[in-house]
Amino acid sequence: MPTPPTIEDIRAAAERLKPYCLRTPLLESPHLNAIAGARVLIKPEPLQRTGSFKFRGAFNTISQLGPEAKTGGVVAYSSGNHAQGVAAAAQILGLPAVIVMPEDAPAIKIANTKSYGAEVITYHRLNDDRAALSNKICEERGATLIRPYDDPRIIAGQGTLGLEVAEQTKADGIQLDYVVAPAGGGGLISGTALALRSELPQTRVYSAEPEGFDDTARSLESGTHQENDMESRSICDALLAPTPGDLTFSMNKELLEGGLVVSDDEAKEAMRQAFLRLKLVVEPGGAVALAAVLSGKLDCQGKTVCVVCSGGNVDPQMFAEILLS
Amino acid sequence: MPTPPTIEDIRAAAERLKPYCLRTPLLESPHLNAIAGARVLIKPEPLQRTGSFKFRGAFNTISQLGPEAKTGGVVAYSSGNHAQGVAAAAQILGLPAVIVMPEDAPAIKIANTKSYGAEVITYHRLNDDRAALSNKICEERGATLIRPYDDPRIIAGQGTLGLEVAEQTKADGIQLDYVVAPAGGGGLISGTALALRSELPQTRVYSAEPEGFDDTARSLESGTHQENDMESRSICDALLAPTPGDLTFSMNKELLEGGLVVSDDEAKEAMRQAFLRLKLVVEPGGAVALAAVLSGKLDCQGKTVCVVCSGGNVDPQMFAEILLS
Repeated sequence: MPTPPTIEDIRAAAERLKPYCLRTPLLESPHLNAIAGARVLIKPEPLQRTGSFKFRGAFNTISQLGPEAKTGGVVAYSSGNHAQGVAAAAQILGLPAVIVMPEDAPAIKIANTKSYGAEVITYHRLNDDRAALSNKICEERGATLIRPYDDPRIIAGQGTLGLEVAEQTKADGIQLDYVVAPAGGGGLISGTALALRSELPQTRVYSAEPEGFDDTARSLESGTHQENDMESRSICDALLAPTPGDLTFSMNKELLEGGLVVSDDEAKEAMRQAFLRLKLVVEPGGAVALAAVLSGKLDCQGKTVCVVCSGGNVDPQMFAEILLS
Repeated sequence: MPTPPTIEDIRAAAERLKPYCLRTPLLESPHLNAIAGARVLIKPEPLQRTGSFKFRGAFNTISQLGPEAKTGGVVAYSSGNHAQGVAAAAQILGLPAVIVMPEDAPAIKIANTKSYGAEVITYHRLNDDRAALSNKICEERGATLIRPYDDPRIIAGQGTLGLEVAEQTKADGIQLDYVVAPAGGGGLISGTALALRSELPQTRVYSAEPEGFDDTARSLESGTHQENDMESRSICDALLAPTPGDLTFSMNKELLEGGLVVSDDEAKEAMRQAFLRLKLVVEPGGAVALAAVLSGKLDCQGKTVCVVCSGGNVDPQMFAEILLS
């Protein structure tokens, strides 16, 4: 297992990302505050380049590849947000990219990945081994695999979000009690928690996951890696990783207060509230942290909580249906 | 006619607004750049407090009222965004607010206005004189009318948006060729153009309007106040003012390069692009400047253009229909 990143790695990532990455603002709505009974600050990563936080880790990783690792370009497997992050980062850095995506990924994610110049190869979510397929492509092309979360450079890149939250709340004199962020493989939440442990050690950090894919919550509770039943279904396509990453879970065990779990219906309601109150398009998986706070899964009455909305790549058809449901 | 505001008035407004107003970031999408053949920077005011830029002018005005003017609270007439801006600003400043709104205003705008504690009185857009009705309420209650655009304090407040655009592009070393912003009564565009004339004198500023309500474009061309046919219809409910304001037009005559006009279909396409590429909810009237650039109404090939998306208060039903159309 590689060594976890440090706060210095996150700071270095922030410097690398500065010219390319949006410093997303903190949004606030009195209506959401009233629902939560708390002050809720939203970190809106749908506004980030490629529509999710994933660009942060992808760019931080690819920009550090040595000449040899770059020869054959990069390969990634992803349901769609890491795919777009890697494709866009590779395009900026002038490298070819091959992305291995599930054939049932949202059409918008496949189309966007191609739009950044990447070659897309699809696989079947249950029948194919995406890691093996990706490794084979790497061997054939002399390409480098960009892992979705279990890499210290990826974690450091995602952790720049936590660094920004700390800087932004400090600058506004806000004392932050909680941070809640979605967890799939755990790269965003581990990097964010690492940054906050250093910058705001009093702030407690929680992961949020959809029902059926609550591997991080159960692993945190039991102290050992728990797997999801891969026949589970959720609308949260971005958060369907089978089990926590080795590196991310080793960090999350130490850094997280616990894991929150929401239903698909609670995620949909959070998407509707983000539309109504924030004018923000959030995809189902990107809305689970907001859902956890709005549905009362986190007891945060009278507190100040920062909620990460992690992505907004959702097909128009699905978004329209959820708006009207 | 009152005296136009100065750049110092805009700077003072920015100081007043600082604790309450979001400094909206500049967003960029390679996909929108490709459509426009230009570098397109989006100023996303749907993210602003109350979901539109209107809070800027409303707060700047109400926070300057003297003790006598405040006695009976404030009154405003508005199709909905100024309504919400005035209601939210009055609530923050502890004043009662009565808002006179057309009975066919979007439900979300009426509900939001009430949610900020304001009393809402509706009128019929064609049969009633909203200005007369508002003046009557002011007399009865000893309240102060907060005009939607023809007031130097309103214009200075909206002009803080232009000041931010100048500061943000300068900080990033960006040379800005054009700014395009929607025009209803002309408060936003006149304040923005005033700020830019001072801070970025080389940048040319255009208004954008929907077909049938192109009074600013025609007035700029003829040099005299032109009126809209009030039986015209447009989906852009925020931009249905009958004629340019006296004060705003006197400024716009000097400050604007010209006026751009888009169809409702072009506004809808801009809304879809903002959803897909920016993850931003934009209302029809808020999308006309983006529509003007994406539809080629402004010749900006190879240039850098800042587009103001001015508001995002759109009913879910209408938004869903437009997404799928």
